[in-house]
This record gives sequence, structure tokens and C-alpha cells, in this order.
Amino acid sequence: MLYLENFAPGQRYVSNKLRVDAAAIKAFAAQFDPQPFHTDDEAARGTFFGGLAASGWHTAALTMKLLVESDFRPAGGIIGTRADEMKWPRPVRPGDELHVESEVLKVRPSTSRPGQGSVKCRSTTLNQDGEPV
Amino acid sequence: MLYLENFAPGQRYVSNKLRVDAAAIKAFAAQFDPQPFHTDDEAARGTFFGGLAASGWHTAALTMKLLVESDFRPAGGIIGTRADEMKWPRPVRPGDELHVESEVLKVRPSTSRPGQGSVKCRSTTLNQDGEPV
Repeated sequence: MLYLENFAPGQRYVSNKLRVDAAAIKAFAAQFDPQPFHTDDEAARGTFFGGLAASGWHTAALTMKLLVESDFRPAGGIIGTRADEMKWPRPVRPGDELHVESEVLKVRPSTSRPGQGSVKCRSTTLNQDGEPV
Repeated sequence: MLYLENFAPGQRYVSNKLRVDAAAIKAFAAQFDPQPFHTDDEAARGTFFGGLAASGWHTAALTMKLLVESDFRPAGGIIGTRADEMKWPRPVRPGDELHVESEVLKVRPSTSRPGQGSVKCRSTTLNQDGEPV
């Protein structure tokens, strides 16, 4: 467990790796993002993606899973109130192996809640070729 | 199906409603965000949330589901490359009924891909009391 005083800008965390298969991509999409390029190999070919691709929200959810299981363990849990920016530069494809690299950017004690505070991070999810997804 | 010329700033879309129960909250969290305040009623009481709350990524994924099922139907699908900002002002609780309200902010033809373009929207997910989550 890490407390506010344990965090400092520049610290880096690297997660474990996680492999994503077609079944997981389709199962997530069926529940949350039922569009042909996320649910059906055949139908995906004629789309923008040119083949099956994970929902961007699946990529985001897997990023959270990898973060929660990493050594980035703030006491009280990982609770986000905002993201300044999110980018999906590249789709996740069946068979991709993802990991997350995070860097602490800012540490700020709360002005209203003594003993509490927030940590601002940049997290990048990379595939097996080191490309951000 | 809506094409680029069908979109204009100021257009509004309202989704259907969707009720979230404790089982769905725990199932999502077990897979993607296994922290006590998302997975266990009892353990959640002593946390920041004071009781079971949905993962923010679950809220985001449900928002996508509601959008995909709404009348906001761009030809080619809803494909996002970035979000300028995301906020989670309030947790989703078991029993909450969500809907999404979206407004078109900007419509821009692609400079590199003739016949294509992008639509920028603001989407807000509201609970049964009209509060943004």
C-alpha cells in the first residue's frame, strides 16, 4: 500500500502482460459495444478496421485491470474523477499482448480533506510491438 | 444510417434507459476492476464510496451501449479516436437507471480521406435523478 508521501513525479510503473483473444473481444462487444467490427470477423472485413478489433472501451477496461494488478497501489484504491485526455491511436487485435506503463506526473494533497490527496498519472497501453493502443 | 451531411452542431440525441444492478456491477469489476468497493457490498462500506459503486469503466461501457442503441447512427459506425475530457462526477449505484444525452458540437470533413469526416459530441450519462454520473 502506498500513501501520498510515497508518490513523486517521475515514478514509473510497468504492469504485467495480458493476451487478448477474439472470444474476449466479441464477448465484451456483445455486452457493451455491439458493432460489426467488434463482434463478427466476417462483417468486420468491410469496415474501417478491415478486420476484428476490440472496442476502445474494452482496451480501457483491460488497462484498468492491468493497473489494479500492478505495483501502483495507492491506499484507498485507484479511484479516478477525471481524465484530461484519452486517445485510441491504434486498435487492439485478436492475439495482441498488452501491458501498461504509467508515470506519476503530479502529487497534490487535498485542500478540503486532511490526510488525503490525488496523484495524476499518464498511462499508456502498449501492444507486443511496443505500439500505443 | 446518418452521413456527414446529416449532422449539424446543436443536434441532440437521447438514449433509452438501462437499469444497473449489483450483480452487473460485481461481474464487470471481477473482470476489469477488482477493487473492494466495486466487488463486495460489505467491504465497500469502509471505503471512499461508503457502499458498492460501479467501476467508472463500467459506467463508460454502459454509456457506449446506450449510444450504440440510440438514434445516433453514423454510417460506418461509432468509432472514437479520442476524448478531450472524461469526468466521473458521481458513482453509479446498484439500482440506478441510466440514460445518455448527446449533443453534436462540431462536424468536420476529413482533409485526407474524401467522403469521410468526423463528428465531435458531448455525451452526458445521467441517473434517474437527472444527476450526471
